[in-house]
Amino acid sequence: MSKLRVAVIGAEGRIGSEAVKAVEAAEDMELVAALGRGDSLEALTDAGAQVAVELTHPDAVMGNLDFCVRHGIHGVVGTTGWTDERLAQLRTALAASPGTGVLIAPNFSVGAVLTMTFARQAAKFFESAEVIELHHPNKADAPSGTATRTAQLVAAAREEAGCAPQPDATSTALDGARGASVDGVPVHSVRLRGLLAHQEVLFGGVGETLTIRHDSLHHSSFMPGILLGARRVVSTPGLTVGLEHFLDLG
Amino acid sequence: MSKLRVAVIGAEGRIGSEAVKAVEAAEDMELVAALGRGDSLEALTDAGAQVAVELTHPDAVMGNLDFCVRHGIHGVVGTTGWTDERLAQLRTALAASPGTGVLIAPNFSVGAVLTMTFARQAAKFFESAEVIELHHPNKADAPSGTATRTAQLVAAAREEAGCAPQPDATSTALDGARGASVDGVPVHSVRLRGLLAHQEVLFGGVGETLTIRHDSLHHSSFMPGILLGARRVVSTPGLTVGLEHFLDLG
Amino acid sequence: MSKLRVAVIGAEGRIGSEAVKAVEAAEDMELVAALGRGDSLEALTDAGAQVAVELTHPDAVMGNLDFCVRHGIHGVVGTTGWTDERLAQLRTALAASPGTGVLIAPNFSVGAVLTMTFARQAAKFFESAEVIELHHPNKADAPSGTATRTAQLVAAAREEAGCAPQPDATSTALDGARGASVDGVPVHSVRLRGLLAHQEVLFGGVGETLTIRHDSLHHSSFMPGILLGARRVVSTPGLTVGLEHFLDLG
Amino acid sequence: MSKLRVAVIGAEGRIGSEAVKAVEAAEDMELVAALGRGDSLEALTDAGAQVAVELTHPDAVMGNLDFCVRHGIHGVVGTTGWTDERLAQLRTALAASPGTGVLIAPNFSVGAVLTMTFARQAAKFFESAEVIELHHPNKADAPSGTATRTAQLVAAAREEAGCAPQPDATSTALDGARGASVDGVPVHSVRLRGLLAHQEVLFGGVGETLTIRHDSLHHSSFMPGILLGARRVVSTPGLTVGLEHFLDLG
Repeated sequence: MSKLRVAVIGAEGRIGSEAVKAVEAAEDMELVAALGRGDSLEALTDAGAQVAVELTHPDAVMGNLDFCVRHGIHGVVGTTGWTDERLAQLRTALAASPGTGVLIAPNFSVGAVLTMTFARQAAKFFESAEVIELHHPNKADAPSGTATRTAQLVAAAREEAGCAPQPDATSTALDGARGASVDGVPVHSVRLRGLLAHQEVLFGGVGETLTIRHDSLHHSSFMPGILLGARRVVSTPGLTVGLEHFLDLG
Repeated sequence: MSKLRVAVIGAEGRIGSEAVKAVEAAEDMELVAALGRGDSLEALTDAGAQVAVELTHPDAVMGNLDFCVRHGIHGVVGTTGWTDERLAQLRTALAASPGTGVLIAPNFSVGAVLTMTFARQAAKFFESAEVIELHHPNKADAPSGTATRTAQLVAAAREEAGCAPQPDATSTALDGARGASVDGVPVHSVRLRGLLAHQEVLFGGVGETLTIRHDSLHHSSFMPGILLGARRVVSTPGLTVGLEHFLDLG
Repeated sequence: MSKLRVAVIGAEGRIGSEAVKAVEAAEDMELVAALGRGDSLEALTDAGAQVAVELTHPDAVMGNLDFCVRHGIHGVVGTTGWTDERLAQLRTALAASPGTGVLIAPNFSVGAVLTMTFARQAAKFFESAEVIELHHPNKADAPSGTATRTAQLVAAAREEAGCAPQPDATSTALDGARGASVDGVPVHSVRLRGLLAHQEVLFGGVGETLTIRHDSLHHSSFMPGILLGARRVVSTPGLTVGLEHFLDLG
Repeated sequence: MSKLRVAVIGAEGRIGSEAVKAVEAAEDMELVAALGRGDSLEALTDAGAQVAVELTHPDAVMGNLDFCVRHGIHGVVGTTGWTDERLAQLRTALAASPGTGVLIAPNFSVGAVLTMTFARQAAKFFESAEVIELHHPNKADAPSGTATRTAQLVAAAREEAGCAPQPDATSTALDGARGASVDGVPVHSVRLRGLLAHQEVLFGGVGETLTIRHDSLHHSSFMPGILLGARRVVSTPGLTVGLEHFLDLG
């Protein structure tokens, strides 16, 4: 069987350089191009790339994807900064290139995506739900984007199922003790030297609790998701947002 | 809206007496009969029961269900001891009573069922999977039935997806250190005073781990699953084995 | 060897009735009196009690202890509401009855006391320290008294050792995300159906974290500490505040 | 105040090169020599080293320490392979050089040492104690040396306190389910891709459990312990085995 011809755009970045190594190590893939800052996109067509892994910057991503889609090169995109307008523009480009697919994923960690998926599924079965996220102390925002997104998914699932508000008899509290409320779901942010990125989703019902915990110990955790995306995007025309759509959870 | 007319068979047992209270407390249900040892099954038809919650003993369950099915009373069954032969016999009875449904569930804890469901779904995405179950020290068997079942589900999902064997370079080990192997998945049993019933399923991939943990702190945790079963079985003719089929995990 | 003659004052309360059973079950003790509301304190002297376990109410405790101390009966006290003034008054009474001892303990759970002791000891060795406490949703205050006390002990130990402030680069945060600050130590309060009383103290340093977790699953967890207190108070004249002084941690 | 003059022997190894960086980064220390394979020990005296951090190999350590002790240079030793005979030989050398100190530590992670210390202290207060250690799947031995040592300390503390054997009603078990027995304490070894080195010590009593967990996420976690050792060894003549002796746990 011939190998999948994969290129990496943004190959010099922290994640990009990991992606180069991951593609090289994958038995079913061939790394045909690794583009850094200033390299011409022509290298992609010259190399006959089937899939481009795009890991650059919001300023560059639209131009890169426009080139890829016009040339029938599928895209796996980790760059952030997506707005409704940008997504619409990309959809228009894809409509003009039937058969070409692009996957945009805010998080390529399979563990993080499964955590969010399971949390959404479990949400309606329990009276209580809270999120604790734990990160290194150099992080600027609290809660993390993943924790906020998780809490939103949990809150939406509970609302859709018509769940009652969470029980909470707290009448005397120190400011902040009960965390931040994200659509009614309390989120707690811990910052601890020695940690990288960790998240716990806790559910509680009569007599039992369910906890889903994800620990990221190294950013190489994004690689299996990127490779999975590359394998699947070639047979998924159009725009896909979120790695969860490529996980067959049967 | 009229309330669901529910009976409990085995109402004097530990779980049965909890079920009586749970049905009484449910706003959408009416407890119409509570049968103990020696009570006549006629009480079910006399009371106009729509659903019977069967929590007795392997010696009694077949007779009880035979009566229910013949009279079009749906069944929610927590009694154990099911064999292929018994299941076939029940299916035959149900075929003769179209519209009647029976749910048999080895575990009515929603948290335990979700843990197994999520573990099965996650299994193929990680290189490593192990199970740790933790129980009170009066438990006679190790591993627990739930842990064994979980490990079997994980192993089957990995095999179906063609996963490689789990990595393990252990060359020098004390006997038992690496746990019991259930279809290739290591299972570890902890027995600790103060605990009730707890289980962790650990998955590990490059740079990340995913942990699903279920804590049972009281056997009242079975009640939401029993009530859910009663609500759903009335519109699910035939035999259903496993509460997971009544959880819409969308 | 003769058994220790123990009385329980407040024997009809939730904790008191557990204490009665625990004393009865202890092989080295004899329950000589169990006083409820309205019973005369003379019963203590009539029964020849050596130790009285006092589990009543702030309104009653001073009178009960005054009687005990005057009659040379040692006290093990779980009743709360202690002020500096009350402690001074008790010390004066004890000074007049040399050889008599009283133990006042805000928490008789050995696990909770060890958690606080270890947290205090570990505090100075790590850059970061946070507390997460998790309780049932009927709890009125947040954080719990134990969590607040733990955070205060950690903060004091860090200050005494001259530790730098905890690293935290958070610049954008939702209100409450970073918890409540207790003397500079973040404390997070989770309220979840199914839980009883749980606490985690997290420490983080370069490349490692240390977590001390205490789970209370039943209020019978106070009994070993009460029995330990009774055994030790008879040879510890004067006032002792805190069960930790009776734990030989060598 | 003048800085502590520190040398590193074995500066090219994985831990040694980290130690070089850690000493350089410490404000109260000056790195005066960094010796690799083949470098002469004279460099230590030439540089006026006060403390030598020895991170080499069992074949080299005795010669290195002999030189240091003869020249009044204190030692902080991470090299393994110590036997009673070797320790006796080192003690003899130290006796001939009063004022000189050597610290040998099997584990320089403060978190690991505190875990063992706290586990030993807690052991006698609980009916049940078990150890779970979790490592990357490339590890050759199970259980880990640290877990074995922890279990031994727990078992010894329980025996010294006259604790009853642990309760365990297991009558039917799969081989290995209940772990390896180290002096009667069950130890469970998990091997999971994505992990580095982690350990949980679980204690259980009536109604409560206490868990002490240590997570090593990077071998830089040894550095604070090495620096602490260097600071303290200069005023601790003779031989000290175990970093715990330099932690003031007050």
